Amino acid sequence: MTLSEVTLHAPAPTGAGHFRTPSRRDDRHLLGLEGISRTELLELLEDAAREREWLRSGAPNRDDLAGCSVMLAFIEDSTRTRTSFEIAARRLGANALTFGASASSLNKGETLLDTMKLFEAMGTQLLVLRHGMSGAAGYLARRLPGVGVINAGDGMHEHPTQGLLDLLTLRDAWNGRFEDRRIAIVGDIAHSRVARSAIAGLSALGTDVTVCGPGTLMPAEVEQLGCAVAVSVDEALEGADAVMALRLQKERMEKGLLPSTAEYARVWCIDAARVARMRPEAVVLHPGPVNRGVELDPSVADSERSVILAQVQNGVAVRCTVLKRCWAAWKEAA
Amino acid sequence: MTLSEVTLHAPAPTGAGHFRTPSRRDDRHLLGLEGISRTELLELLEDAAREREWLRSGAPNRDDLAGCSVMLAFIEDSTRTRTSFEIAARRLGANALTFGASASSLNKGETLLDTMKLFEAMGTQLLVLRHGMSGAAGYLARRLPGVGVINAGDGMHEHPTQGLLDLLTLRDAWNGRFEDRRIAIVGDIAHSRVARSAIAGLSALGTDVTVCGPGTLMPAEVEQLGCAVAVSVDEALEGADAVMALRLQKERMEKGLLPSTAEYARVWCIDAARVARMRPEAVVLHPGPVNRGVELDPSVADSERSVILAQVQNGVAVRCTVLKRCWAAWKEAA
Amino acid sequence: MTLSEVTLHAPAPTGAGHFRTPSRRDDRHLLGLEGISRTELLELLEDAAREREWLRSGAPNRDDLAGCSVMLAFIEDSTRTRTSFEIAARRLGANALTFGASASSLNKGETLLDTMKLFEAMGTQLLVLRHGMSGAAGYLARRLPGVGVINAGDGMHEHPTQGLLDLLTLRDAWNGRFEDRRIAIVGDIAHSRVARSAIAGLSALGTDVTVCGPGTLMPAEVEQLGCAVAVSVDEALEGADAVMALRLQKERMEKGLLPSTAEYARVWCIDAARVARMRPEAVVLHPGPVNRGVELDPSVADSERSVILAQVQNGVAVRCTVLKRCWAAWKEAA
Repeated sequence: MTLSEVTLHAPAPTGAGHFRTPSRRDDRHLLGLEGISRTELLELLEDAAREREWLRSGAPNRDDLAGCSVMLAFIEDSTRTRTSFEIAARRLGANALTFGASASSLNKGETLLDTMKLFEAMGTQLLVLRHGMSGAAGYLARRLPGVGVINAGDGMHEHPTQGLLDLLTLRDAWNGRFEDRRIAIVGDIAHSRVARSAIAGLSALGTDVTVCGPGTLMPAEVEQLGCAVAVSVDEALEGADAVMALRLQKERMEKGLLPSTAEYARVWCIDAARVARMRPEAVVLHPGPVNRGVELDPSVADSERSVILAQVQNGVAVRCTVLKRCWAAWKEAA
Repeated sequence: MTLSEVTLHAPAPTGAGHFRTPSRRDDRHLLGLEGISRTELLELLEDAAREREWLRSGAPNRDDLAGCSVMLAFIEDSTRTRTSFEIAARRLGANALTFGASASSLNKGETLLDTMKLFEAMGTQLLVLRHGMSGAAGYLARRLPGVGVINAGDGMHEHPTQGLLDLLTLRDAWNGRFEDRRIAIVGDIAHSRVARSAIAGLSALGTDVTVCGPGTLMPAEVEQLGCAVAVSVDEALEGADAVMALRLQKERMEKGLLPSTAEYARVWCIDAARVARMRPEAVVLHPGPVNRGVELDPSVADSERSVILAQVQNGVAVRCTVLKRCWAAWKEAA
Repeated sequence: MTLSEVTLHAPAPTGAGHFRTPSRRDDRHLLGLEGISRTELLELLEDAAREREWLRSGAPNRDDLAGCSVMLAFIEDSTRTRTSFEIAARRLGANALTFGASASSLNKGETLLDTMKLFEAMGTQLLVLRHGMSGAAGYLARRLPGVGVINAGDGMHEHPTQGLLDLLTLRDAWNGRFEDRRIAIVGDIAHSRVARSAIAGLSALGTDVTVCGPGTLMPAEVEQLGCAVAVSVDEALEGADAVMALRLQKERMEKGLLPSTAEYARVWCIDAARVARMRPEAVVLHPGPVNRGVELDPSVADSERSVILAQVQNGVAVRCTVLKRCWAAWKEAA
């Protein structure tokens, strides 16, 4: 597969593509949380909380997305995100279709764009895209006039529905107040789309963010993200209202950015003693899957403070909200 | 994947998990037929026979499972069982989701339990599990409080919906009377979850079971299963009302438990002469796929006496019944 | 997998299996366009044009196929055809199931026929089959009494829904008149099921067909197909109303039937100069995926004359029509 028009440098400029940008057409897309407004975020979270109640009830599927065909194109595989979107789409009555890179015409040398144009021609109205290149979702949004694109993770750029589920989880933990709160984000900040979306959303809501991690895994422009930088986990967690540990990718070791997993764990692993530095009601987030003993000590991952499964549950709810919004905008634009 | 808490020794104790155990919560599960009552079995078969009529009619899907998300988690692959469950789930209006080991986070080192907890958090209410370890279904049933677990085959333990479809097939062949009947089960008894579930169900209904097979493939405690043991196929089939041939797994040869397929076939293959030893109306069952010329002579597999395709048809019907029961119990417990 | 009863020589005799052959039962199948009548073709296209309008509207799913379970069995993988059938089936309310060769019991040595008999026993009423052997669809249609078989491409034989979508695309380009029109088909005629179905359909509608391509890739009996043969692309395209370029399979080079891709492109690639030889309103078709610079110059593939995406869009519409017809016949026969 070639994707030569996509920038290889993260993050790609998005410009278009949040809900309610000046152009109404772009409401069909959700490419990132960068630049999203506080009001809009709070409305999305409010709606997601309602969807969560409905999902919990075990009520029959709804028909909000009747007539909508959603292509779940996971060019990078992801069990949890794909399944979460699939459940949300089906519960709302959409036709959920899946496309993976393995059993595909991408193997026949077709470009990503050509393949997605096919799905557009077949009547797919919404595209949920997971792709290894930063900017891939925005690239397709600009080139597929009939399709709303939802970014389910693009390289080192953004993962906006993950950001939303993190916010919904913190909304519960923090009784709805994001101001005067502080969260520590620990780990590979430089390569993390999870961190980038979380920082964008939290900044819009007025939460202070402190990042920390190995120097080789900190982005050069880290201060431009509006975050404080701590030199140690202990410092970052002191008095914090939450900590988000990021998943460590093994390829960082292979590329020489880190000496070893054991060395990483010794310095950065969040254990009970470190959790004790936070406020008493502070919570522990992780996007999963957890490398137990690396990012989180098992006792922390399985403790009362861990809200990892709440994050997963909230994921289906925020995806319901996002699918509804994008589909509503698609119908309005049609 | 690690599953260290699961016993590696078959069969695992089940205890909980049939329909209508004293605790109502457990009615959400179907882990095995061991210990199930005659009354309960006959009711299940009665209902499955009704579902079969409905399925044959080509009528539109029903909504018995509206709002129910069923995860079909086949960690061991199985086309026939997975498709059968998927058809049953869809015909009753469920959201059928699939999970296989290949394209999965199990590859990222996540445990089976952690992955299934994700699906629980996402709102999956029923889990249909095929797994290579004996006791895997019961293990998950005890650890996922919000999920009903249906065992679709766990190692050498049980395969209860296969047992039910075998019983429904025999119910037809035997005009509904299981007493004063005798069935021979031929082959690898020691490693067969199919045999174990069939024996449990048939014993509850009062049918005599005679087993036979190579000495290395007979369980040590065979008499404790309540079966007679025959020394030859000819002896086992003499006057029997049915024979169930078990599929021979090639790994038995690799592990040195059998000299060769040809040698197995010479001694244990059921051919027309051996079928002639049974009663005139006796039938031939096999869980499939058949190794023609190994367990069954082709002339037998394709004869009028073979009810192999009836077994497959009955499989969808019994799975409709089981899904309905587990979902009803889930809703009651919620 | 063994398929010994299937002829290895293309094309297989079809005999049964178009819509409206004398025997009503065969209306459940669509095996090819060979021998189909003009009237029938025009009716199918008329209906597909209506379905296309409905699909474009984004209206909720219909229930034309409620109660119908469609197995999409793609033993040869194909993203575009499989997805197209899946969207059509779901938009009409069918239960769409998928079966691929990889994760399947075909790996356990079961024959194609045995596996499909399973699906028949499970209540699958329609089978959409893609298979590498010519005649595979007809073979199954003759052996599965309860199943309607739709050929989605069988070896070098036919691909009738591709033929129908090509016809629907030309119907638009030609304002509904097929007589006094001429189309050039360029490339590997000998091995192309796409060409074979297109020629059958176009001949029935009175369109002149001129074929051209490398001598090693022309069928021996080419004149028997009722086509003219041109010695060069320039000659073939002169004054034509459309050109259909066929996809070049890399295995032709490996088998020594072609010297190289570059050599093929030099002689047969359709570029702007060659397009200019056709009538001003002539269109360019390709079944996809296009090898840009081999069969079509990129400037042609992306030009206004290219109707490749219209073909893809029309594919869903004709598959709606075909599924409806086969299901109606199935219900009548039941």
